[in-house]
Amino acid sequence: MMVCTALVFFMHTGFAFLEIGLTRQKNTINILFKNIFIITVGLLMYYIGGFNLMYPGEFNGFLGFAGFGLETDAAGLTPEYADGGYTYWTDFLFQGMFAATAATIVSGAVAERIKIGPFMVFTIIYVGLVYPIVGSWQWGGGFLSTLGGDDAGFYDFAGSTLVHSVGGWGALIAIWLLGSRIGKFDEDGKPKAIPGHNNPLATAGVLVLWLGWFGFNGGSVLSGDPALTSLVLTTTSLAAAAGGVSAFLVSTLAYKNYDLTMFLNGILGGLVGITAGADLMSPNEAVVIGLIAGAIIVGGVALIDRIRLDDPVGAVTVHLICGIWGTLAVGIFGDKAGMDQFLYQLTGVGAAGVFCIVTAAIIILALKKTVGIRVSREEELEGLDIHEHGMDAYSDFRLNQH
Amino acid sequence: MMVCTALVFFMHTGFAFLEIGLTRQKNTINILFKNIFIITVGLLMYYIGGFNLMYPGEFNGFLGFAGFGLETDAAGLTPEYADGGYTYWTDFLFQGMFAATAATIVSGAVAERIKIGPFMVFTIIYVGLVYPIVGSWQWGGGFLSTLGGDDAGFYDFAGSTLVHSVGGWGALIAIWLLGSRIGKFDEDGKPKAIPGHNNPLATAGVLVLWLGWFGFNGGSVLSGDPALTSLVLTTTSLAAAAGGVSAFLVSTLAYKNYDLTMFLNGILGGLVGITAGADLMSPNEAVVIGLIAGAIIVGGVALIDRIRLDDPVGAVTVHLICGIWGTLAVGIFGDKAGMDQFLYQLTGVGAAGVFCIVTAAIIILALKKTVGIRVSREEELEGLDIHEHGMDAYSDFRLNQH
Amino acid sequence: MMVCTALVFFMHTGFAFLEIGLTRQKNTINILFKNIFIITVGLLMYYIGGFNLMYPGEFNGFLGFAGFGLETDAAGLTPEYADGGYTYWTDFLFQGMFAATAATIVSGAVAERIKIGPFMVFTIIYVGLVYPIVGSWQWGGGFLSTLGGDDAGFYDFAGSTLVHSVGGWGALIAIWLLGSRIGKFDEDGKPKAIPGHNNPLATAGVLVLWLGWFGFNGGSVLSGDPALTSLVLTTTSLAAAAGGVSAFLVSTLAYKNYDLTMFLNGILGGLVGITAGADLMSPNEAVVIGLIAGAIIVGGVALIDRIRLDDPVGAVTVHLICGIWGTLAVGIFGDKAGMDQFLYQLTGVGAAGVFCIVTAAIIILALKKTVGIRVSREEELEGLDIHEHGMDAYSDFRLNQH
Repeated sequence: MMVCTALVFFMHTGFAFLEIGLTRQKNTINILFKNIFIITVGLLMYYIGGFNLMYPGEFNGFLGFAGFGLETDAAGLTPEYADGGYTYWTDFLFQGMFAATAATIVSGAVAERIKIGPFMVFTIIYVGLVYPIVGSWQWGGGFLSTLGGDDAGFYDFAGSTLVHSVGGWGALIAIWLLGSRIGKFDEDGKPKAIPGHNNPLATAGVLVLWLGWFGFNGGSVLSGDPALTSLVLTTTSLAAAAGGVSAFLVSTLAYKNYDLTMFLNGILGGLVGITAGADLMSPNEAVVIGLIAGAIIVGGVALIDRIRLDDPVGAVTVHLICGIWGTLAVGIFGDKAGMDQFLYQLTGVGAAGVFCIVTAAIIILALKKTVGIRVSREEELEGLDIHEHGMDAYSDFRLNQH
Repeated sequence: MMVCTALVFFMHTGFAFLEIGLTRQKNTINILFKNIFIITVGLLMYYIGGFNLMYPGEFNGFLGFAGFGLETDAAGLTPEYADGGYTYWTDFLFQGMFAATAATIVSGAVAERIKIGPFMVFTIIYVGLVYPIVGSWQWGGGFLSTLGGDDAGFYDFAGSTLVHSVGGWGALIAIWLLGSRIGKFDEDGKPKAIPGHNNPLATAGVLVLWLGWFGFNGGSVLSGDPALTSLVLTTTSLAAAAGGVSAFLVSTLAYKNYDLTMFLNGILGGLVGITAGADLMSPNEAVVIGLIAGAIIVGGVALIDRIRLDDPVGAVTVHLICGIWGTLAVGIFGDKAGMDQFLYQLTGVGAAGVFCIVTAAIIILALKKTVGIRVSREEELEGLDIHEHGMDAYSDFRLNQH
Repeated sequence: MMVCTALVFFMHTGFAFLEIGLTRQKNTINILFKNIFIITVGLLMYYIGGFNLMYPGEFNGFLGFAGFGLETDAAGLTPEYADGGYTYWTDFLFQGMFAATAATIVSGAVAERIKIGPFMVFTIIYVGLVYPIVGSWQWGGGFLSTLGGDDAGFYDFAGSTLVHSVGGWGALIAIWLLGSRIGKFDEDGKPKAIPGHNNPLATAGVLVLWLGWFGFNGGSVLSGDPALTSLVLTTTSLAAAAGGVSAFLVSTLAYKNYDLTMFLNGILGGLVGITAGADLMSPNEAVVIGLIAGAIIVGGVALIDRIRLDDPVGAVTVHLICGIWGTLAVGIFGDKAGMDQFLYQLTGVGAAGVFCIVTAAIIILALKKTVGIRVSREEELEGLDIHEHGMDAYSDFRLNQH
């Protein structure tokens, strides 16, 4: 569990690499700053209140709070806390590393045009309140976990819905309210590709994320049970591989081009897709879930373009659409498949969706109406780095010195 | 074992960094694409058939196959599978991460001039068939493992021969049939250095590979035995350090220059060299093996140049020559040293060599005669990225914006 | 412990990224070379003599030596070695990874102007002799560990003083004797910012260091005790987050600018600050220690500039000043707080300081008076890469190819 916590922490490096790799150089510092802000403030927010909002103990199933800060009563801190599986501190830290992920997903989608101040406010509220409340509905023992009575209900192993779609809904609302980057759509609304500035870092980012998913899904077994943990790692990796290959094949057929970013997003799609049921699937089922997720990636990216939304890193497709797919897949494949389960899954997707859409819209609209959420045209064209941070990402970079 | 699997997976990030760092910018996307292809397709091929080809159970010692896909019978999946050491799933995933390595080694050697389609075909066959068949001869309980009767035979702890030389032989045949990059040799056959475009990433790649070797060798203990595992990590790290220092000293003496890439390749040479006997050596022996490997690196790189082969990343020297050195070293140093063992080692090196040379030559020649394996002169000069992938690695990169 | 060793090893990647990211492109190869040298030679020096100098067994409390090389008597190598916690090999390798850290800290401070030969000599002596001698005073059971009798004394959990301040004192002396980079101070002594060339790598470096600290502090528990280890990971991460946020807030208030490098150094300051007492603090105390460390970072960087010292990466502030702060904090907060303990802490800080200042000054002055320690003006202006290594870090880098 502690090793997994370290791996999930390392995912933030992956997110940062991916995000700056796929965006323009002039906004690199800004994106790095946002990511560092999310990691540090996200963890502190989770410490101050998020953890006890997500795991409130006995509560009404919708909203509960166990108080500020962490326990310091030594008695509760040993592994007996979780029947020998892990300690209270591990629990907090592992979950805290997850919490920041939701805001990071939004960060990628709104890159290159959002004002940093309002984004910080959004992050604090979304990580500090929205994410843990949704989480409490299932992982905290809330109403989603008992939809079908004491023994049945919504199932989301490691967060296709509770982490990825929560971030994805926030991203969708944010890019809708924020508008597209200057130059993304021409006068007729035709999308134009805005290439990123550092594909090696983007590729490294995806590999780091895959590595981190070993911790994300492996640690979500919440015990060292080697049979189940190793099955989870196997289904996770096979879904990732299948997602990548599928997106590669579909995009090559569709666009006659070996597109690296589709391959990469396909891997991420496969990972998000398997996350809800990584412990329920056979290897064959994991491959099928990945293959479908990869195809969804290619279609989803085209769809987002079609509806004139601007998502520089494909966050909505990867985290929201594949998150929904993975959640529903639990009702279609694997040990829990069945119509009842499918309906529980649909309910969970819907409940999280409605809550996230409403809260994200309220937060962002409030910010938009007051301080504004978008940088000036001049700042967007010249880059956020120099305007908000007074520095370039590679200011000393020179060519062919000798 | 599961942590080690994660570390071995992470080695692919190291390989990707090393390979793009030491090559030219215009082929970066192509190399990243190949690496991502290898990881994903390699894992799927190993899932479909490779694992059961490598571990066929009872077989004739040369070729056996236990069927497609993985077991799903729950009874066999617990740690009892391996006397408590690890589970069936862990076994598959750990070995699957190794499998892709062989193709990655070839990828570096043929970089900057091979057609991507034929390379994909080669990868599928080499990872899917050649690697697991050679592996079955030893790790699957085949004829190499019983050369000296039931209790003695070839020894290759973590794959100096079975992984590194298998990749190395493929690389040697491939660069011989493929020819050198335009500009590598002048009219008199004198080699010219073609510097890479990103030495920081190359350095990071070597450090990530060293980290990954903690999993590669540490996990090959195939149990959590702390005494042996920690000895293996110690010999591995000491050989890496000695290999680096040795290559640095020899190359500084030979060329009057503090050559970073020699230092880096020396570390890799030390790592490959210790891999066959990491569990048999004392720390002093590990240092000696590393020191010799480092010297081999400097000599090997000069030799490859001398015979007019073009290996942009030094893959043949690192993986093949040091792989052979490490395999033979098991007969010279450590717990198994002796003339009989030396001959077993030589037999293993020879058997793997002949099989890899023949199969690699057949695959590559068949591809060469049919679809061709080399890109056009125009494509090579302008870069594979724009021709095969329609994008630049750093397309938005700008200098001194403000 | 072994996983932690791997993570501590990985910190060297973090240091390398941070250091090259914050310095100029023309010295990148030089910095990478120095870092690779430190890792490999540091480990070998620790193997040859450092380990037995640091853990001499029974000794006079000031200086002892248990002989060259490592034990190879199998009996002593099992986990019984440390009451079941870890093996002799793990002990060596984990401590060996620490040893190199001290020299890496110096490396960052003297970057861009030190001659590589003398730096290598300094590294060999400092890692091989100075670091292990100071370490033996506490971790080897020396006089600092028994300042207050058998049961009380100086306390430094994972090395705020024994690792970080040892490196920090060396860095301080080195930059004082070496002088500032050309252009760092104008004629009136006013400091000028010399921006680094690769902020994404610098950011990645800090995240990798944070990850590595999971091993640095987590492994320093020296057993798998889950309750204490998980508490240590929690205090470590909370202090890092608090340090970053504090430095961000203070620097934003002071300079009206969202400064990424202050945020990053704040995280490092928090990590160094918690290192001495990570196992003694409650989460709240960890946050307070981090908040103060973050503020110290902003003030310390300004102070170093004010006294006209040139520390390109802020090593003295991060490792020395925050190292002292963290050490003293053990006497102020947590389970050992009290005036006696505070005086023990002060004594440890002072003893390490005096010894490091004297030895570093002797080594560096001797080098300065003989071979010289500073590159020529021409070399500094044109870059160390081309002069000492004959290569550029990104020699093939091109813009907008198509």
